[in-house]
Amino acid sequence: MKTVVVNDRSFAYFPKKWKYCIGTGRLGLALQKEYVDHLARLQKELNFQYIRGHGLLHDDIGIYRERKRADGTVEPFYNFTYIDRIFDTFLELNIRPFVEIGFMPKLLASGEQTIFDWQGNVTPPKDYDQWKQLIQAVISHFIDRYGVEEVTKWPFEIWNEPNLINFWQHADKKEYFKLYKITARAIKEVHPYIQVGGPAICGGSDEWITDFLQFCHKEEVPVDFVSRHAYTSAKPHKVTPDYYYQELYENTHMLDELKSVKELIQQSPFPNLPFHITEYNTSYSPINPVHDTVLNAAYLARILSEAGDIVDSFSYWTFSDVFEEAGVPTAPFHGGFGLIALHGIAKPTYHLFSFFNQLGEQLLYRDSQMVVTKKQDGSIQLVVWNLIMEKGEGLEQTVQIELPTQSDAVFIKRKTIDETNGNPWRVWKEMGRPRFPKKNEIDTLQEVAQPLIRTERRDGLSRTLKLELTLSKNEVSLVEVFPIIDETNTYPGLDDRLIPSY
Amino acid sequence: MKTVVVNDRSFAYFPKKWKYCIGTGRLGLALQKEYVDHLARLQKELNFQYIRGHGLLHDDIGIYRERKRADGTVEPFYNFTYIDRIFDTFLELNIRPFVEIGFMPKLLASGEQTIFDWQGNVTPPKDYDQWKQLIQAVISHFIDRYGVEEVTKWPFEIWNEPNLINFWQHADKKEYFKLYKITARAIKEVHPYIQVGGPAICGGSDEWITDFLQFCHKEEVPVDFVSRHAYTSAKPHKVTPDYYYQELYENTHMLDELKSVKELIQQSPFPNLPFHITEYNTSYSPINPVHDTVLNAAYLARILSEAGDIVDSFSYWTFSDVFEEAGVPTAPFHGGFGLIALHGIAKPTYHLFSFFNQLGEQLLYRDSQMVVTKKQDGSIQLVVWNLIMEKGEGLEQTVQIELPTQSDAVFIKRKTIDETNGNPWRVWKEMGRPRFPKKNEIDTLQEVAQPLIRTERRDGLSRTLKLELTLSKNEVSLVEVFPIIDETNTYPGLDDRLIPSY
Amino acid sequence: MKTVVVNDRSFAYFPKKWKYCIGTGRLGLALQKEYVDHLARLQKELNFQYIRGHGLLHDDIGIYRERKRADGTVEPFYNFTYIDRIFDTFLELNIRPFVEIGFMPKLLASGEQTIFDWQGNVTPPKDYDQWKQLIQAVISHFIDRYGVEEVTKWPFEIWNEPNLINFWQHADKKEYFKLYKITARAIKEVHPYIQVGGPAICGGSDEWITDFLQFCHKEEVPVDFVSRHAYTSAKPHKVTPDYYYQELYENTHMLDELKSVKELIQQSPFPNLPFHITEYNTSYSPINPVHDTVLNAAYLARILSEAGDIVDSFSYWTFSDVFEEAGVPTAPFHGGFGLIALHGIAKPTYHLFSFFNQLGEQLLYRDSQMVVTKKQDGSIQLVVWNLIMEKGEGLEQTVQIELPTQSDAVFIKRKTIDETNGNPWRVWKEMGRPRFPKKNEIDTLQEVAQPLIRTERRDGLSRTLKLELTLSKNEVSLVEVFPIIDETNTYPGLDDRLIPSY
Amino acid sequence: MKTVVVNDRSFAYFPKKWKYCIGTGRLGLALQKEYVDHLARLQKELNFQYIRGHGLLHDDIGIYRERKRADGTVEPFYNFTYIDRIFDTFLELNIRPFVEIGFMPKLLASGEQTIFDWQGNVTPPKDYDQWKQLIQAVISHFIDRYGVEEVTKWPFEIWNEPNLINFWQHADKKEYFKLYKITARAIKEVHPYIQVGGPAICGGSDEWITDFLQFCHKEEVPVDFVSRHAYTSAKPHKVTPDYYYQELYENTHMLDELKSVKELIQQSPFPNLPFHITEYNTSYSPINPVHDTVLNAAYLARILSEAGDIVDSFSYWTFSDVFEEAGVPTAPFHGGFGLIALHGIAKPTYHLFSFFNQLGEQLLYRDSQMVVTKKQDGSIQLVVWNLIMEKGEGLEQTVQIELPTQSDAVFIKRKTIDETNGNPWRVWKEMGRPRFPKKNEIDTLQEVAQPLIRTERRDGLSRTLKLELTLSKNEVSLVEVFPIIDETNTYPGLDDRLIPSY
Repeated sequence: MKTVVVNDRSFAYFPKKWKYCIGTGRLGLALQKEYVDHLARLQKELNFQYIRGHGLLHDDIGIYRERKRADGTVEPFYNFTYIDRIFDTFLELNIRPFVEIGFMPKLLASGEQTIFDWQGNVTPPKDYDQWKQLIQAVISHFIDRYGVEEVTKWPFEIWNEPNLINFWQHADKKEYFKLYKITARAIKEVHPYIQVGGPAICGGSDEWITDFLQFCHKEEVPVDFVSRHAYTSAKPHKVTPDYYYQELYENTHMLDELKSVKELIQQSPFPNLPFHITEYNTSYSPINPVHDTVLNAAYLARILSEAGDIVDSFSYWTFSDVFEEAGVPTAPFHGGFGLIALHGIAKPTYHLFSFFNQLGEQLLYRDSQMVVTKKQDGSIQLVVWNLIMEKGEGLEQTVQIELPTQSDAVFIKRKTIDETNGNPWRVWKEMGRPRFPKKNEIDTLQEVAQPLIRTERRDGLSRTLKLELTLSKNEVSLVEVFPIIDETNTYPGLDDRLIPSY
Repeated sequence: MKTVVVNDRSFAYFPKKWKYCIGTGRLGLALQKEYVDHLARLQKELNFQYIRGHGLLHDDIGIYRERKRADGTVEPFYNFTYIDRIFDTFLELNIRPFVEIGFMPKLLASGEQTIFDWQGNVTPPKDYDQWKQLIQAVISHFIDRYGVEEVTKWPFEIWNEPNLINFWQHADKKEYFKLYKITARAIKEVHPYIQVGGPAICGGSDEWITDFLQFCHKEEVPVDFVSRHAYTSAKPHKVTPDYYYQELYENTHMLDELKSVKELIQQSPFPNLPFHITEYNTSYSPINPVHDTVLNAAYLARILSEAGDIVDSFSYWTFSDVFEEAGVPTAPFHGGFGLIALHGIAKPTYHLFSFFNQLGEQLLYRDSQMVVTKKQDGSIQLVVWNLIMEKGEGLEQTVQIELPTQSDAVFIKRKTIDETNGNPWRVWKEMGRPRFPKKNEIDTLQEVAQPLIRTERRDGLSRTLKLELTLSKNEVSLVEVFPIIDETNTYPGLDDRLIPSY
Repeated sequence: MKTVVVNDRSFAYFPKKWKYCIGTGRLGLALQKEYVDHLARLQKELNFQYIRGHGLLHDDIGIYRERKRADGTVEPFYNFTYIDRIFDTFLELNIRPFVEIGFMPKLLASGEQTIFDWQGNVTPPKDYDQWKQLIQAVISHFIDRYGVEEVTKWPFEIWNEPNLINFWQHADKKEYFKLYKITARAIKEVHPYIQVGGPAICGGSDEWITDFLQFCHKEEVPVDFVSRHAYTSAKPHKVTPDYYYQELYENTHMLDELKSVKELIQQSPFPNLPFHITEYNTSYSPINPVHDTVLNAAYLARILSEAGDIVDSFSYWTFSDVFEEAGVPTAPFHGGFGLIALHGIAKPTYHLFSFFNQLGEQLLYRDSQMVVTKKQDGSIQLVVWNLIMEKGEGLEQTVQIELPTQSDAVFIKRKTIDETNGNPWRVWKEMGRPRFPKKNEIDTLQEVAQPLIRTERRDGLSRTLKLELTLSKNEVSLVEVFPIIDETNTYPGLDDRLIPSY
Repeated sequence: MKTVVVNDRSFAYFPKKWKYCIGTGRLGLALQKEYVDHLARLQKELNFQYIRGHGLLHDDIGIYRERKRADGTVEPFYNFTYIDRIFDTFLELNIRPFVEIGFMPKLLASGEQTIFDWQGNVTPPKDYDQWKQLIQAVISHFIDRYGVEEVTKWPFEIWNEPNLINFWQHADKKEYFKLYKITARAIKEVHPYIQVGGPAICGGSDEWITDFLQFCHKEEVPVDFVSRHAYTSAKPHKVTPDYYYQELYENTHMLDELKSVKELIQQSPFPNLPFHITEYNTSYSPINPVHDTVLNAAYLARILSEAGDIVDSFSYWTFSDVFEEAGVPTAPFHGGFGLIALHGIAKPTYHLFSFFNQLGEQLLYRDSQMVVTKKQDGSIQLVVWNLIMEKGEGLEQTVQIELPTQSDAVFIKRKTIDETNGNPWRVWKEMGRPRFPKKNEIDTLQEVAQPLIRTERRDGLSRTLKLELTLSKNEVSLVEVFPIIDETNTYPGLDDRLIPSY
């Protein structure tokens, strides 16, 4: 049995970089009530700083329109009715947009290639002047409505995954750099303090990072941050109408990737640029059932624990299953990216975030399966996990942890998710996988979507608390240890044994 | 091991008479926000029909006042400001008053004897004419504000426990009958359809029932229902500043009592009068810790299961620990009557009520430790308990139950409270019994105040489901069995084994 | 000056048939938060029974989908995820669907003709068997989810305005009758108690009504109600990118139309069929500014007052400007149909409905510009209006009304909308017609969107109250007259003159 | 007609010192739901920083209790159950306690003299050691629960109006100084940064100020601020069971008083101490009908405008009619101090505060009947009033104001309260002064409790806007002037004349 001895002499700072930003389905979905309900819950409990999604310029929000003048010529008409409602909602919920510029409005598109069930156009503008006008109109409107002070806090990222042929016509790097240059300069013309960045690539072609920064350097194009995505799954080995099945790499694979990209930046002409992972998850498919599992949480635990050492932020893709890239969901557990399933059902990974959110800012200890912190009030927090990527039952693991304590009595609170607890996917399978569950089924799924809570008191400690934690397969637990100020002796004559049966 | 075989050929009706009425601390407390919050939750989840409490005429609500006329003489002034707010609140929360007439306004009292920390005056009126005017003014005002149709749905009970010397000066039976006669007639003069009743005695002097009904018969005094209270605890064997310790009788003791009083009514001149238990609980003390325990729930389970066979209603005393009979509570778990502790923390007995609320109306089976029902949708419900009044660990019990089923697969949902689960009192003790818990302690107590939920699927059934339930000491469980309509085969190519680790 | 003398000897019943049903933008919009917010307000204040909108089968809700089987053939897949959420929302808000069957899912369509910015397909099914399967799947799902008792309360209307070539390919009457026959029979096969009806035509071709009922009679096709629409505007005389301008007919024009259609039904083989106006308004255009005006309210007042004499229901088109038939709205006041503008701003016609909602059920008097009712509590209600369709200032009118009263003092409450009051459109114009108003502008528009309230006391009455009401151009007022029970003399020594300045 | 010419070259800062603190009925009332509802509304709309009320140590909150030890001796027991709930509520509503130390717990009192219907004991402690222990226990508990950082933001004021014999036994100055010395030192012993002050006198004996500061200087007693009250009414000339009638002094009387006290402080050994008016209003009686009138608002307008020049804060007594000093209110308009009447009805003075809250921080102009400010967005705000303390009708006044403007078009929004508008007291009188109004009466009173809003557009301005404002008797108006950015010409072809009747 592994034994870990933790002291509290380390004063390392442990910032919550995983809270900087969170992904969302296309922005137009933010008009939906269920979306707003999920986001309100997320913000109340986890309070992310930024939210990033596709589709700012997509035709459902409908910013770009054209109208005929009296003389028959056409003029652009910029319609901000919906984007105002969306951004108003975000700001009311205390989350700012991390703005992704894309995709192409149909009327400005040079081609007909689209992506997703909702048909985002991924072709370059047919006229870069009109594009520039659009971009400047949009930014100016944001400043007019929200003020310069606010808008200069919003990062603007140009396009999404241009290194993929389905996200950018021909994955044409040269065309992307052109788009970037024109767009970034257009933005800075409106206000020089607005932050712009790119190239928002997915993994697999990191030479884009190097080339992009060289290009910006050489062409004197503004760049305030570098962005990239990170998914950790292989190509699918089976695809059905409902689901997409993939193998996962080790989670260290992603950490290694981030380090190597970080090095590319450090070797570039802009070695100190902020580096944002503007999307990450296990699978990149919105119908991969892994997203609904406890494994997903156990797998990502180490990433939440360590990725912040490398990057400036990493943004989980996505907070909610209100999402339509693969069409309207066909079942409540359809393998969507969301932390929150339809009907407001928290998935295991939601609780992973919630557990990490309880951690303190003083890092006492960290290894491949746990992180230990301390808060100013003297309490100690652990998140501990037992990632098991192989098949099979059992596979539990016991760890022994010695924690420093200054009181001779402590109160221990443990919250657990595993196959049995906080796992609505399992319960839904037991129910017979109802596609359109009824009210009492939804109620049950909501009820079971909670961690198990256990509490315990330990007395007679002498500067050390020994915890022995047995973790089931893919369990993730949060353990909080509070010093006790015992008031029992302020109840004179107290005698629980006089209560019947006690 | 006990085995119970249940069939569904019984069509006995199982009404929820325990839901008819619930007790409350003195009505003046209904002005408080915490009170209203607790009541709103209660009504949302359990939806009682009536609420009954002391103090309608107490001086904190201040209905009876006097004023000097210009000529120096005094006239009554009836102030309905607060009682209107209170009854408006009740009706908005979909609960009607079961009105207890009492105690005596100081200005009308013939003596100075009071009860409770809040000093309810328990002496007869100094002037029965003024009393009658007061009663008629109050009833008339209710009709004026809420309408005859509404007010004739409210039972009016005259006084509280007049057979006790601390609730009615000298426990003077003759004086009580006088009070009853004058009050009942005064009410009927205002509107003959309003229901009046008494004698609202506590146990131990059931000759009052007989004498009361004889009196009404002989004197032609209106009486629409008989009321009595029922507590099941002996005299205290220890009293401390904080707590009051008592032994409990068997719970069948209370059922036997109710039967014998029922017989007295049947032998009276009014054999068919409705019989309401307007208060019941284990202990009659608001600082007996038994109220905070799981034992309290396990003990009362049988009463909830069977008392409705005997009486027309029985009203748990009380829904909330917002209560001041023993002064302002000095700790969150102070042994109060409430189903809901301060800070909105549900106690085990709250969940007992919640479990019984899930039962269907078709009674399939009942014995001393379980009740089984069926609903129209084909689902089956059990509440099962393991009452252990002796001390000691272990003491668990296993029961085997065979249930009828028409589908070959069922989904089973079990909710459990016991020493470990849904027991915030235990957790509070672990914390060191903080008298004035801080925010994070309150949060934890609220979080743990939930039943454990477990679910399971059973396949390959052939008209019978065999359940083997192990119940820990004083556990109460709700088990719901739902027929499954399996949709798994509507997911072509589904293969969970392709998910990593599954 | 006109003088009206009203007595209270008439006991005519005045049902609120205008409350039976209300129109909505396409059902898919019911996923939006702003839509739900508007509907919640509507229901809280006005509480309609049914809601009717287009697009049940449109691809945004996405009920009809197809999937490839393993053998490469295609099978239908019915996705109820969104329609369940929508109908759950309606029922939670205490409003039932008045279901319009339409438009055609792309995958079932025989052609490509679409209508509206959101491209509803208006062609017949390419395969009536698949159509029938779809209809039956949908109805069966509704019954499965909501129960037979509920679903048999929902009327099902087949298609929308098939007599218009833009709503039904070629306005092909024969094809419509075929669609109707197959659909109605398909529904009745699922459950014979479900109500079906048609032909949902707009005005101008009422021979469809006659032909439709003859067809149903001859072919023995089920029909439970007749439906038609009614708009009162002429063809547009100017159309701009933002607005559509039309003349209005007299409002009696619509009443006359309804009467003549009612006669057609009475002369048909089904003379007693219920007759529902499933859409009505002044203009049929979603960008006609008349909808935002006080004129719209003054004009419709007589229709609300009288149409219920002729038809079984009439359903205002629509409750909210959350609507996309002409694309995303380009300004808050864009001439939309809604009673409630974007940002939750009530338009004058909203208040017209609110005023009519205050009327009692005993009709005392009615003429072309007022309606007078009485309630059981003795209060009297008037809605009175001064419709002026000509241009110009002034044009106010004074009416004198004598009302019966039984108390010698009354309290009069008058709520008024006119050009000055309850007219956010005017204020928005004063602001310079901001397309995307800012927070403080929205706040102001919400604040001014309230009627003016004036109150008055009248004493010394002797069975009659004489009111002299001056109505400005297009004013609509609600006047409520309450008998006073004066308590002033219960304040001994009261003397307001002792208050400084009084 | 008076003409005022305002320019925008003044950059005087106009802080909202009236928002620093607000008075409340005794703290125990903060347990009530209606109280919390009123406070939540106040904070949402006006957001005060502090709240001050009597009764921290009164027996309804019950902090001080005693218990018998096993040996029969008595020990203090400090019960924080209710005060924690109260202060938790305040802090959740974003308002901090301005703590008044008082009155005397019965068990610590040296005498039996009480004040108010709720019987606050106003005698010195019978034992100053026990008092000191109580004070230190209370302060220590606050620090323990809320943290030092928070509690050092709460001012602690010792007692209330000790210069009045009904608030402090014999108005014994020497005894008060003793109480002050012991209490202030006790507090500072717990934490030296906590602010303490006094002497909290009412007007009429300002030598107490001088003596108090001399005493503190001589005895080296800590003092961090000076406090005093200010009411502007004479002795009553009539008192009835319901009301108390008084004359009012000129409002400048109060301003003069504050100046003279300020001078006393400046001449004292602590010339720079902050000076807080911890209570002010017109009448000091909780049943003076002036509080319900528009006069009260018009009268206080000048005080809100000017008192902040003299003092560091002034705290309106009180925010709500949830108040019991004169017993339970006997009618909704009973002359209570509250800005908000029972049932959540805003009184005129509430709107006065709301109007002042809209003022900007740049003071452009001020005189005896108006104040003019500017905000950073270029808008200009006026509050203007027409105080008329004499009886009679008419008495309106017209003022002409020239305001600077940089746009050639402005949007003007005017909100008005006067005898006709925003005056629920008048409407209640019209209703016959119902003591216990019914639901529809309450609804009407809530509806009329709003200012009248009028809007207007003015074009063709050339750097100056001329406003001519006619003010009715005791009217208070807020006028806001916004520059217009006109978008009318972005609607090509717009022609309102094509709308019927326009």
